[in-house]
Amino acid sequence: MVGVDGPGDRYVIGVDFGTLSGRALVVRVGDGTELGTAVHEYRRGVIESTLPDGAPLPPDWALQDPEDYGDVLRHAVPDAVAAAGIDPTRVIGIATDFTACTVLPTLADGTPLCEVPELRNRPHAWVKLWKHHAAQPHADRINALAHERREPWLNRYGGKISAEWQFAKGLQILDEDPDIYRRAARFVEAADWIVWQLCGVESRNICTAGYKGIRQDGRYPSREFLAALDPGFADFVAKLDGPLLPMGARAGTLTAQAAAWTGLPEGIAVAAGNVDAHVTAASAQALMPGRLVAIMGTSTCHVVNGSELVEMPGMCGVVEGGISPGAWGYEAGQSGVGDIFGWFVEHAAPTGVDSHEQLSELAAAQPVGAHGLIALDWWNGNRSLLVNHDLSGLIVGLTLATRPADVYRALLEATAYGTRMIIEAFVEAGVPIREVIVAGGLAANRLLMQIYSDVTDRPLSILGSAQGPALGSAIHAAVAAGAYPDIYAASAAMGRVDRDAYRPDPGRARTYDALYAEYRSLHDHFGRGGDNVMSRLRAIRNAAVDRPAEQVPTPLEVVA
Amino acid sequence: MVGVDGPGDRYVIGVDFGTLSGRALVVRVGDGTELGTAVHEYRRGVIESTLPDGAPLPPDWALQDPEDYGDVLRHAVPDAVAAAGIDPTRVIGIATDFTACTVLPTLADGTPLCEVPELRNRPHAWVKLWKHHAAQPHADRINALAHERREPWLNRYGGKISAEWQFAKGLQILDEDPDIYRRAARFVEAADWIVWQLCGVESRNICTAGYKGIRQDGRYPSREFLAALDPGFADFVAKLDGPLLPMGARAGTLTAQAAAWTGLPEGIAVAAGNVDAHVTAASAQALMPGRLVAIMGTSTCHVVNGSELVEMPGMCGVVEGGISPGAWGYEAGQSGVGDIFGWFVEHAAPTGVDSHEQLSELAAAQPVGAHGLIALDWWNGNRSLLVNHDLSGLIVGLTLATRPADVYRALLEATAYGTRMIIEAFVEAGVPIREVIVAGGLAANRLLMQIYSDVTDRPLSILGSAQGPALGSAIHAAVAAGAYPDIYAASAAMGRVDRDAYRPDPGRARTYDALYAEYRSLHDHFGRGGDNVMSRLRAIRNAAVDRPAEQVPTPLEVVA
Repeated sequence: MVGVDGPGDRYVIGVDFGTLSGRALVVRVGDGTELGTAVHEYRRGVIESTLPDGAPLPPDWALQDPEDYGDVLRHAVPDAVAAAGIDPTRVIGIATDFTACTVLPTLADGTPLCEVPELRNRPHAWVKLWKHHAAQPHADRINALAHERREPWLNRYGGKISAEWQFAKGLQILDEDPDIYRRAARFVEAADWIVWQLCGVESRNICTAGYKGIRQDGRYPSREFLAALDPGFADFVAKLDGPLLPMGARAGTLTAQAAAWTGLPEGIAVAAGNVDAHVTAASAQALMPGRLVAIMGTSTCHVVNGSELVEMPGMCGVVEGGISPGAWGYEAGQSGVGDIFGWFVEHAAPTGVDSHEQLSELAAAQPVGAHGLIALDWWNGNRSLLVNHDLSGLIVGLTLATRPADVYRALLEATAYGTRMIIEAFVEAGVPIREVIVAGGLAANRLLMQIYSDVTDRPLSILGSAQGPALGSAIHAAVAAGAYPDIYAASAAMGRVDRDAYRPDPGRARTYDALYAEYRSLHDHFGRGGDNVMSRLRAIRNAAVDRPAEQVPTPLEVVA
Repeated sequence: MVGVDGPGDRYVIGVDFGTLSGRALVVRVGDGTELGTAVHEYRRGVIESTLPDGAPLPPDWALQDPEDYGDVLRHAVPDAVAAAGIDPTRVIGIATDFTACTVLPTLADGTPLCEVPELRNRPHAWVKLWKHHAAQPHADRINALAHERREPWLNRYGGKISAEWQFAKGLQILDEDPDIYRRAARFVEAADWIVWQLCGVESRNICTAGYKGIRQDGRYPSREFLAALDPGFADFVAKLDGPLLPMGARAGTLTAQAAAWTGLPEGIAVAAGNVDAHVTAASAQALMPGRLVAIMGTSTCHVVNGSELVEMPGMCGVVEGGISPGAWGYEAGQSGVGDIFGWFVEHAAPTGVDSHEQLSELAAAQPVGAHGLIALDWWNGNRSLLVNHDLSGLIVGLTLATRPADVYRALLEATAYGTRMIIEAFVEAGVPIREVIVAGGLAANRLLMQIYSDVTDRPLSILGSAQGPALGSAIHAAVAAGAYPDIYAASAAMGRVDRDAYRPDPGRARTYDALYAEYRSLHDHFGRGGDNVMSRLRAIRNAAVDRPAEQVPTPLEVVA
């Protein structure tokens, strides 16, 4: 927070709603300087095992309480303004970004069904967080029917839609609690719901409508398709549809009530809703085609604009204007990255070498290839390019001489190979990748960044802000407030990137070429049908876990 | 030690020379009761980095000092007799067993070259321990030439002789220190050398001559073959050959000097030399064809008699009379077993679950297949059936939910699958396996034993003594002393086995069938040419490790 509050300066607020907390950031409109920030932790966090009233939830559920989102407006925003030490009357706009697909059923006025007293004990009345994975059977039904009917939108999503998305979650509600489905006049992304709370007007943003709502070429899936899934589902689009806003648009102005919550001036601009990953492209000055942003944390999300439409197998989605107007926005992802490193430190690192710092230091001292290991980074399945959550992790090359830092380094490298697979798939499909820019918490890991640069044999740029999404939202707020003609101009003026912060070493890159060839061959063998052992092991596991314990005396008992 | 020293009882002494210590055991001839035991730790243990005078050794060397072996006779034997509380004059015989191939160059009278003062600083003058692996290039030359010339003995060793064996070690001496080679009038297994010390007469036993000395059908490799390797090597067999004794034979009688060392009566029987693994078959009452003994410790050795000759790819060796007269003795092995479990506890188990006891308890509570993992147990290469030390370990099925006990159990199971591969290979080749008997330290691990029983779907018998090799030697001593007509009779009277101590559970065995099918498919893919990634990773590793560090700036320095 190095900015200085000059007499003529104006400010915008970006608010980033994450999985466990929300962050507000005060940014100077003129140059993107960050002046103050504050975080509010959600009181209920992720609701996974029981509802607040104690009702138990089935496995794979993940809910949230919309009141937590309101608390971010009531606490984090005024706290950030106070931290920045600015005069709040000089704030001209506010914008928000959200996890996605995080979605909730509401009354016609936007009241969440879970806030209707008699529905509070109904699990399907609550917000379904992005990582609610209990709708997999519904996604399977949607995909099977879409393949059968050759629905034209399917290839926009690499051939498969996700269980995390709006249609799967909606179909689950219809299946399991048709009364809630019926009472849900609206079914709305949290990204859009929060904007509705701020400006009092319902809208839908083109990003979540496209990436999470299957809106393509101006249309949602047809009524016939939905009716074929379930006659009761034929009207689903009516619950979704609404005034559609391009990215950077003004959704409305701050209501008196929202001004009271936030301490900001009534009537300032409120931008259209947005998604945390996609909005980061603005912070990273990465809106021009070919600038791929990798937002690296527990998982990695890749977003990149292209000037043409390409349907690439295994990508998450392509949406016209999904990142910024006038471009095709592409999204891909790796479902396990920082999560895998964390798993290793917590569950596989012995006493004495059980911190990221120690392991990184030891790993950094190794010549490339010296550990003799290759891993497939599928601890949490594979989102791109294989789109298969039954895949699992693999390590090969273990010997009695293998040490913890060897495996740790192999895991870092495995995620880099996974990124290279995605970059190469884009390039081969005809989506040029001219620059790779890293954002997210892992961008601070210098060893990891150098490995990514060496493995991809490309320079690596680093987002120049630790608050990529919130800064991106602030940039959108500036556009919505009319301070810039469009996001491109605002991003250029307010975004920050440390260009080519890491450069590949030619020698290491050549060794990594050889190792990557091994990764690719294992990737294709285990991921593309050579050996489906991972799926079979998962089926054996599921059958074993389901077996009642009393029929499975443990070996020790058998011989007691 | 529950035996009682009756007035008419006679005793025998078995002495087991291990890698780090030697153990003596006093056994009653009539029924095999163990009355007392004592261990002597070698003073110099394994000489790996420098000779006693400080001269450095290259990598992969492993030497021993023959004085350590003499100390076992001088300390462990009288200590065991004292512990047994018997009258030493009632001892009628002594027998020994040794690690193999552990081999030394001597003068014509048996004096080790390393005890000749002017040769003490010459590495090649010392005992080469079984795990001296620096003769791999020499083994490679021998194998290549034998293949080229289609030497008839090669298939008796599964198609490949080991770098650990006599001819490889002898050729290394000739290559690297021809003067030592020339001065070595004799080149003798420690198993035979110790017998020579006890009875003053040189002999060779049929077991090491066959399994470690390439003696087949009454012949060693031909002079022409040896001359083709190196003209100087043509006479090698003259250094090896000597009076050949069948197993259980009397090699001579205890000399006055050896009687003084041991406190035993001069003139008692001294049995022919033997190998620790093979002699255990006698303890386990496993000399009848089809009774396979798995001696399980850091690695596993499998020995089984067959009534016919079969040449099976990938076995270690088949030797007529190699275990007992009148049968073909087969040997196979797994190069990493307890070593792998130890590696996991030391290098991969996090704080709080870092003991075999904790991990076993957690692993035992799991239904079969619940961890969703398969491992290939090649952390130390694969001795049988693939005979490839470039192979390495693999784990597949890892997820963010994988916990230490899951991996630990998968490693136990992987070694069980490896054993099943060997058993099935014997059966398919026409060597019937009627019973599996486990000996060695791991036999005490109840979880592991139950897993082996379930995986092989066979009952498992357990050797009834914790001192399998020493008891086996005592049995051979009784035969050499004439107390029994042959080893078969002595083994039946003095051996002990807990028959069918573990029985397979049909439900678990069926699940293991499915998992074993996955193991086998991975085994063949990575071990039989489907994907040679393990060899390539090793080559990349070796090239990386050889690279000077200054040409490999670590990633952290590059960006500092």
